[in-house]
Amino acid sequence: MRPLLRVAVSGSTGNVAYALVPRIAAGEMFGDDRPIDLRLYDIPPVIGKAKGVVMELEDGAYPLLHKVAASADRAEAFGDADWVLLVGSKPRGPGMERKDLIRDNGPIFVGDGKAIAANASKDVRVVVVGNPCNTNCLIALANAKGVPAERFTALTRLDQNRARSILAKQAGTLVAEVTRAVIWGNHSSTLFPDFVNARVRGKKATEVIDRAWLETEFISLVQKRGAAVIEARGASSAFSAAQAVLDHVRSLLEPTPGEDWMSLAVLSDGKRYGIPEGIVCSFPMRSRGQGDWQIQDRAEITPSARQKIDASVKELLDEREVVKDLIP
Amino acid sequence: MRPLLRVAVSGSTGNVAYALVPRIAAGEMFGDDRPIDLRLYDIPPVIGKAKGVVMELEDGAYPLLHKVAASADRAEAFGDADWVLLVGSKPRGPGMERKDLIRDNGPIFVGDGKAIAANASKDVRVVVVGNPCNTNCLIALANAKGVPAERFTALTRLDQNRARSILAKQAGTLVAEVTRAVIWGNHSSTLFPDFVNARVRGKKATEVIDRAWLETEFISLVQKRGAAVIEARGASSAFSAAQAVLDHVRSLLEPTPGEDWMSLAVLSDGKRYGIPEGIVCSFPMRSRGQGDWQIQDRAEITPSARQKIDASVKELLDEREVVKDLIP
Repeated sequence: MRPLLRVAVSGSTGNVAYALVPRIAAGEMFGDDRPIDLRLYDIPPVIGKAKGVVMELEDGAYPLLHKVAASADRAEAFGDADWVLLVGSKPRGPGMERKDLIRDNGPIFVGDGKAIAANASKDVRVVVVGNPCNTNCLIALANAKGVPAERFTALTRLDQNRARSILAKQAGTLVAEVTRAVIWGNHSSTLFPDFVNARVRGKKATEVIDRAWLETEFISLVQKRGAAVIEARGASSAFSAAQAVLDHVRSLLEPTPGEDWMSLAVLSDGKRYGIPEGIVCSFPMRSRGQGDWQIQDRAEITPSARQKIDASVKELLDEREVVKDLIP
Repeated sequence: MRPLLRVAVSGSTGNVAYALVPRIAAGEMFGDDRPIDLRLYDIPPVIGKAKGVVMELEDGAYPLLHKVAASADRAEAFGDADWVLLVGSKPRGPGMERKDLIRDNGPIFVGDGKAIAANASKDVRVVVVGNPCNTNCLIALANAKGVPAERFTALTRLDQNRARSILAKQAGTLVAEVTRAVIWGNHSSTLFPDFVNARVRGKKATEVIDRAWLETEFISLVQKRGAAVIEARGASSAFSAAQAVLDHVRSLLEPTPGEDWMSLAVLSDGKRYGIPEGIVCSFPMRSRGQGDWQIQDRAEITPSARQKIDASVKELLDEREVVKDLIP
């Protein structure tokens, strides 16, 4: 058995965290030889409910779950944490614009970033899931003084999983046969699902699937999939988001297999693909394992892809502008 | 890769199934070398919502999920199914008595049993999760003509998991150190959590934990745990129930390790522990793997345990009486 791993999850009473925490407890995220000390963080009004989630975790009789507790105090929940999964955010209310949502969420991630810097393990890794996750991630990392920015990643894996699944269906093949279906830009309706670099059974997707469909239908299907799920289920995606968080973390912990790429949003250094510095943008990635990612330089960018990536980047720059006072 | 396994889940839009299906898709139930054909069954009014669950399963990009669909037609959903997980049942409404609940659910399980007999694989295994699960299981197996009764089991694993976790906490040890904490009788507030045969770090639980506490507090904590979770969470147990279903099936598929026992409810043949025949009762069990269970004969029954088991058995006999017209 490896040493106890401290994992903190914020927003523990929400539907995504509810789908996520049993899988962390069951060893699906960190392996079946890794005992877990799981800390649920939530705000005081719902901490009683979070304690109900703790009860269900106890009721799971998970052999790996050596400790579990809920706290409304970040210092306690994030104390010496090896991983902090920031799932908690304020959802969009009726009539709210994206701008309002960004403003409302900003202070939460200021608090998260500061608490991580003050309390978490020196080797902490942070995954931002709560939306708008790219800009929330930017705020958190900017407020986590002393924690290297590359430790913070934001989730675009749900979009990637959707893109892979949609391409597989269209090509009449299994999802395992689709690789390099990565996501560029913002986790929002401006994201660009990259079919140019995607492979189906090792071939370029553009050689296997009709290009006009890829340029129009495919992009739209991925961008609007979240809304389509809400329409069908009457509730937003929860277990598929939790699955993406699992995949995201596992992909960071293990070297990326074969020639595949994956997607994560990270702080841009301004040196890759003409993406300006100082925004959290999704790129094609490989992992070297143990939490370390590497942006792939070999992606082909067509003029049409360039336009779409630029539009998503522009949105990220606009979002940053809305919260500039929260970024030291 | 082993051949495709057909798995049907009823009540697919409920919270327990919602927590269960992603884990089946991820290979947690049947292993990571077993491709899955997953069929969600639900009633017509919610089949659109079930299709939303299918969308999220697609969005999980699960390599093992080779097929997935939702249907409001049992013949389609259960067709050639290797496993049928009957999660769907009508929940108790305000002011309803247990008797009303049993009457309301009976016809659902008549339909399930008949559809399984008419459509499922010859080797089908059925797990009844929807409550009242023991009597629902009895109705289903009695209506599944030609399917051996031993293929039907009902879930008491959540109670067992709770009992193990509570004993571990009281003994100040890890849950992995608690064995043979089995459940007798009905999955209801009359269940008997067996501390007499339970072991903590290989010792009798009664030698490690105060007997008076075991006789009173412990029994009550296990019996009332479901209500306590509802009180804290404001919703009934979902992921811990799904976890128990996973554990239940995996425990049937793999030989029980070491000297441990587990709990399942099965049709009593009237020859074990003085439990009358013709009710579905939870017993101490071992698995020989591949879906086959074996009641353990070596459990010690104290006079006080006998009384409690008899009370739960009486409840099962009363429940059977309520639905006797549904049992051919």
